[in-house]
Amino acid sequence: LIEPLDLYRAKTGDEIVNEQLYSFIDRGGREVAIRPEMTPTVSRMVAGKRQELAYPLRWFSIPNLWRYERPQRGRLREHWQLNVDIFGESGLPADHEIISIADSILKAYGAKPDMYAIKLNSRKLMDLLLHEVWQLNGVQAHSLTKTIDRMHKTEHATFAASVGVLCTPTQRDSGLPEMILQTLSIKKLQDLPAELHQHSSVEELIRLIDLLGTSGVTNVEFDITLMRGFDYYDDIVFEVFDTHPDNNRSMFGGGRYNGLVGLFGVEPVPTVGFGMGDVTLANFLETHGLVPDLKPSTELAVVLIGDVYDKALGLINMLREEGLNIAVDATDRKIDKKLKSLDKQSIRYAVFIGENELQNQQYPLKDLVTGDEKKHSAERIVGLIKDYRNKKR
Amino acid sequence: LIEPLDLYRAKTGDEIVNEQLYSFIDRGGREVAIRPEMTPTVSRMVAGKRQELAYPLRWFSIPNLWRYERPQRGRLREHWQLNVDIFGESGLPADHEIISIADSILKAYGAKPDMYAIKLNSRKLMDLLLHEVWQLNGVQAHSLTKTIDRMHKTEHATFAASVGVLCTPTQRDSGLPEMILQTLSIKKLQDLPAELHQHSSVEELIRLIDLLGTSGVTNVEFDITLMRGFDYYDDIVFEVFDTHPDNNRSMFGGGRYNGLVGLFGVEPVPTVGFGMGDVTLANFLETHGLVPDLKPSTELAVVLIGDVYDKALGLINMLREEGLNIAVDATDRKIDKKLKSLDKQSIRYAVFIGENELQNQQYPLKDLVTGDEKKHSAERIVGLIKDYRNKKR
Repeated sequence: LIEPLDLYRAKTGDEIVNEQLYSFIDRGGREVAIRPEMTPTVSRMVAGKRQELAYPLRWFSIPNLWRYERPQRGRLREHWQLNVDIFGESGLPADHEIISIADSILKAYGAKPDMYAIKLNSRKLMDLLLHEVWQLNGVQAHSLTKTIDRMHKTEHATFAASVGVLCTPTQRDSGLPEMILQTLSIKKLQDLPAELHQHSSVEELIRLIDLLGTSGVTNVEFDITLMRGFDYYDDIVFEVFDTHPDNNRSMFGGGRYNGLVGLFGVEPVPTVGFGMGDVTLANFLETHGLVPDLKPSTELAVVLIGDVYDKALGLINMLREEGLNIAVDATDRKIDKKLKSLDKQSIRYAVFIGENELQNQQYPLKDLVTGDEKKHSAERIVGLIKDYRNKKR
Repeated sequence: LIEPLDLYRAKTGDEIVNEQLYSFIDRGGREVAIRPEMTPTVSRMVAGKRQELAYPLRWFSIPNLWRYERPQRGRLREHWQLNVDIFGESGLPADHEIISIADSILKAYGAKPDMYAIKLNSRKLMDLLLHEVWQLNGVQAHSLTKTIDRMHKTEHATFAASVGVLCTPTQRDSGLPEMILQTLSIKKLQDLPAELHQHSSVEELIRLIDLLGTSGVTNVEFDITLMRGFDYYDDIVFEVFDTHPDNNRSMFGGGRYNGLVGLFGVEPVPTVGFGMGDVTLANFLETHGLVPDLKPSTELAVVLIGDVYDKALGLINMLREEGLNIAVDATDRKIDKKLKSLDKQSIRYAVFIGENELQNQQYPLKDLVTGDEKKHSAERIVGLIKDYRNKKR
């Protein structure tokens, strides 16, 4: 949960380190931070056991993460995030498997392909554009990257002006800003300038989209403006967007970061992965009516009448030993209070046990949905509840 | 995860707040702490929804908790703790259920009753002794409580001296220190002074031990020296001890804290619960040879030979659609490296897929335990792996 602050200074990005980290000095005088993401931590763990681990290594975790942000739709200060990574596979099969897993999880919740879009880009392609095609220097390239990352939250005119400002007068005279804007407006891989078509990054994007199609993942599109915030990505990046007009936003994403494990002083381990947060996932499921209808596992409420717990305990133990999921109400509240508590839950059946019932060994079993009530022996009640359970399946 | 520091100042105990908390000032200027335990947090949550919740309320959680301690056997700075509580039931049935749950969990791991002992005491009984029987004032009572809490880590002579020191000269002259030491040496409820036998706290301990016996929990003993560190307990307390000579220590415990929810400005909600940490549980399981033999869920390693991922993807998808748990190795490593990786895992079967195999639609399936290898069709492989899965059950 807590890492040295330097871990995030190295690769996470300035905005998070300077504005969003929960960092402090611990009792041992160390500068530490509550993890804002899991990727550096997992990479550190893999680096620590690099020799012993078996590759390709598939690891997942669901850690809690913290960022000091204004709480808002899709963002809370604490969230839980599913992290899935494949270590030790440098080829596209791993990128394909990672994106397929992300897609399968959404489909397992009942999502249809038209509810979300998977956007793809390549940091290698972007580096080629920034440094080779547009001939930007390091400072300009970094600045343009951050500008593109914010472009969908910016008016187009403001964005265009920012691009102009970061170019030199000579570059402006040669029409570079217009060329950058034109390239960033490209929507399809085949519309990229012809000299890029043979570049390995473009070939890989084409092959990846093809592989995903073979696995039935067709809601995939190239997006040249997709940057992803983290500095450690160095190849394929992807992001999953909700397409619903009420929640049209990025849900989660991931990509390849072949250089991160190597930062811990070991030979690099090629890695690709994603992180899926609970808050944005819940927003997506709510927007599309896909939130699972979770019911309590309790099948039978055992409502005691009077102070009979000690006498009823043999029967209660028997019901549990038979494998029923029961919840006992042994409070000294009045019966109408006990019934009101039952109303607040979604338990289907209740059995009522008092002195008389224990004496006669006949217990009123109430169906809390239909209101039907009938006396039965304990054995019969076990049978009835098990029948109900099997029918539900 | 993060709570206002005041939450722990109120009830957790000075040692934790002053020496063990990870506390700091957040970016909003608030004094906060990473939770060292879950009970205050859960109580705050119940207080916040006191009216809407249905009682008796049974809640569990498995949070991560932090304390700045010297890492040692049984204690790490971070641990995960199962918390189980029943809210809204003031009677002994809830205490009985909570202790039964703790016991059932250990039994579910295969623990036998002679591997652990459940020690019971009552804060009400201790309050009676401290204030009524021994007539100690508030400062003396608090001091003696802390002294008893440490007594099993102290030489008896040192402990006896501490008891003497906290008494006044008049109390010493009347033989109070000897009386305290004599009472603290009592091992059985029936050996308590006769005037205590009718007290409700003693009657409750007797009834609780009786109820636990009815549920088959017989490794229960009264321990008058059991204090539990937290200040919020106010009635029954219990602690589970490992009886193995190599790990003879407290594993975890709990008790009743009827006053805590009410501290949040609502009507009190009687509560009893326990917290079971992963580190001490793991030590217990290791000591008794009870650590479950966890195997990977992967049933079949799919080892690709050569650059055939794209061609093999239809087959890979079919194996997954049939419900097999497979792990694909599409790396460009040499085959002996791939086999070495398999050795490090506990996967039972591997299938090898290259150009020839894809052409002939016959794939060598290797049993990695026996070393047997035979060619089969994909359909036959699905059948064989499913047979293996069903046999394992």
